[in-house]
Amino acid sequence: MQDRDSEMFEKGFENRKKVLGATHVENSWKRADDFNRPVQKLVTEYCWGEVWGDDTLDHRTRSLLNLAMLSAMGQHHELAVHVKGALNNGVTRDEIQAVLMQTLVYCGAPAALAAFRTASHAIAEWCEEHA
Amino acid sequence: MQDRDSEMFEKGFENRKKVLGATHVENSWKRADDFNRPVQKLVTEYCWGEVWGDDTLDHRTRSLLNLAMLSAMGQHHELAVHVKGALNNGVTRDEIQAVLMQTLVYCGAPAALAAFRTASHAIAEWCEEHA
Amino acid sequence: MQDRDSEMFEKGFENRKKVLGATHVENSWKRADDFNRPVQKLVTEYCWGEVWGDDTLDHRTRSLLNLAMLSAMGQHHELAVHVKGALNNGVTRDEIQAVLMQTLVYCGAPAALAAFRTASHAIAEWCEEHA
Amino acid sequence: MQDRDSEMFEKGFENRKKVLGATHVENSWKRADDFNRPVQKLVTEYCWGEVWGDDTLDHRTRSLLNLAMLSAMGQHHELAVHVKGALNNGVTRDEIQAVLMQTLVYCGAPAALAAFRTASHAIAEWCEEHA
Amino acid sequence: MQDRDSEMFEKGFENRKKVLGATHVENSWKRADDFNRPVQKLVTEYCWGEVWGDDTLDHRTRSLLNLAMLSAMGQHHELAVHVKGALNNGVTRDEIQAVLMQTLVYCGAPAALAAFRTASHAIAEWCEEHA
Amino acid sequence: MQDRDSEMFEKGFENRKKVLGATHVENSWKRADDFNRPVQKLVTEYCWGEVWGDDTLDHRTRSLLNLAMLSAMGQHHELAVHVKGALNNGVTRDEIQAVLMQTLVYCGAPAALAAFRTASHAIAEWCEEHA
Repeated sequence: MQDRDSEMFEKGFENRKKVLGATHVENSWKRADDFNRPVQKLVTEYCWGEVWGDDTLDHRTRSLLNLAMLSAMGQHHELAVHVKGALNNGVTRDEIQAVLMQTLVYCGAPAALAAFRTASHAIAEWCEEHA
Repeated sequence: MQDRDSEMFEKGFENRKKVLGATHVENSWKRADDFNRPVQKLVTEYCWGEVWGDDTLDHRTRSLLNLAMLSAMGQHHELAVHVKGALNNGVTRDEIQAVLMQTLVYCGAPAALAAFRTASHAIAEWCEEHA
Repeated sequence: MQDRDSEMFEKGFENRKKVLGATHVENSWKRADDFNRPVQKLVTEYCWGEVWGDDTLDHRTRSLLNLAMLSAMGQHHELAVHVKGALNNGVTRDEIQAVLMQTLVYCGAPAALAAFRTASHAIAEWCEEHA
Repeated sequence: MQDRDSEMFEKGFENRKKVLGATHVENSWKRADDFNRPVQKLVTEYCWGEVWGDDTLDHRTRSLLNLAMLSAMGQHHELAVHVKGALNNGVTRDEIQAVLMQTLVYCGAPAALAAFRTASHAIAEWCEEHA
Repeated sequence: MQDRDSEMFEKGFENRKKVLGATHVENSWKRADDFNRPVQKLVTEYCWGEVWGDDTLDHRTRSLLNLAMLSAMGQHHELAVHVKGALNNGVTRDEIQAVLMQTLVYCGAPAALAAFRTASHAIAEWCEEHA
Repeated sequence: MQDRDSEMFEKGFENRKKVLGATHVENSWKRADDFNRPVQKLVTEYCWGEVWGDDTLDHRTRSLLNLAMLSAMGQHHELAVHVKGALNNGVTRDEIQAVLMQTLVYCGAPAALAAFRTASHAIAEWCEEHA
């Protein structure tokens, strides 16, 4: 298929589906137009292929790291996506809470409070989706 | 003892010494003057007591999270401190590398390259200190 | 009461209610579930107890500092909360404007323009609430 | 006219209208109340007069630079404004895409993905407005 | 004098000298070459004329705000400059400490610890310069 | 050669040498140890192959964009590298100045002043290297 020819893309696409859910990822790839497809492709290869495909750290740990970094950078759209991904990877609600408490002292109260709001909402959505 | 009376301070002081090394932490507390002592005290209670003292996540995982957050925020003094702390906690050089590779795709190349420079130097220092 | 046993929490809770309004704070504490309560507790103790409880700077000045920092960091949820808190503390609309003008030159036009949008809206809400 | 007496303001106001559209800018100046007018005035003089009025770089290039900086700083309100301004300045959709792909590697995937969402939406709005 | 013709520049230059010290500012203006002069000029007009020249907030308060913002943004060169400026403006060492303690809870421990290191050093230098 | 097998790496390596200078890049690749080689490899492929290898924007424009983004993010090591790269790409000293003046109003005075210091120094070094 066009734009999906590389081995690294396929590896990344599999990892992405495993973490974020196959239906979600297949749909989001199908919906991508010519403006968004190149960034989707590169993210799939580099983030999900090169980085998530390296098994020095397991997916559970990579999820925890992403929650911390995304909270630190205030990237709330991706934070919501990765809270759900973390739950898919077997991270518990208590562990998500513990990561966000760690952002409180290292990134400051406003960053942590914002992350808690995003995570609360994402956890509730994930629970509904898996009820 | 003056300024060290609270239970949370003692708990934090023990965690801090365990992770960063007893001599380093004892000396840095002794060297703190009246301008710096309040921040040292609050960091000890708040970061090292409240957060590192919560065993929902083990110290190894907290070290990995700190490497990711400190790289994301470009806090290189603390990054060097926590690279050494991570090695004390049994995190391997390969795992540090893997965390920093994850910052490459999430925080951008300049942040990751800067983190690699800081970590290389801190690892070399740690090795000398433990040779 | 559970989770509200510490002296520092009580001191912080009083400061928080004084600055942000008693009803607002009581309700937000009651609404906190087990996921959010620990961060609410720690923020109450450390931000509102330790820091706002230190009278080296008065509450009016601390409000001005928060407006500046929250604008610099782009933390708009908390900025709205603290614009209302500043008005409660007797900070005038002209002083809020002057702080945000200072963020214009130090944090850049996009940060300042975003802060002005948030503050305009928060001031309007506060006026309605106090009409 | 009050608050519009300076030469630099007039120069900036012309540049601002040329890039962002005369109707939009005239209306936004008229809507500014006494709380927002000083920041509008200073932004018009310093951003649009001093900087955009310096012809060392043409407006097309300044638009590209703004897209990059605003994506790097996560300033999405202004990013949407400047995506439309870039299109007004003759920047193509492919060039906007290329700038945002450059933010992917330098600012990280979450910043770039957020910028793509904002830009997609702003381009669609601009096309409707110019249909 | 060339490049110093505007009224706003003169107003800003006076404020800058008052806060940062006449000798320091005169020398730094003399040392500016053609690459740096435009930014020095614009900063003098825009920051020191427009903003510091507005007396809605006194210089002492503006100093405190700058310490908070510069710590939040990790701008340590300017933080050192403004710690000294704050001392010139009559801000006490205890007040500087109190501002930085407030950054601890709002901006995170690494930002605050870095600000304390910069401030300690700048205070010591200022004391030597004024001994 | 080990780790340099991919087509994208070779394309990126050529772009990197063209922009940053062949000797500098060859030496920095040779000096990379096993800790740093993976990040050097991915940056070469991802930044220099995928992004700089896309000719929608010419290298001169990409240099200008990098100066703006790196100033916005406060990444001074890379800023110095890319100031020299910009000069290699035919960007003039006046254009570098104009980009940094644009960061003044969009990213704030402290970010711009820091970028001017880094750029002044890098330009002086580049001139010596090319004298």
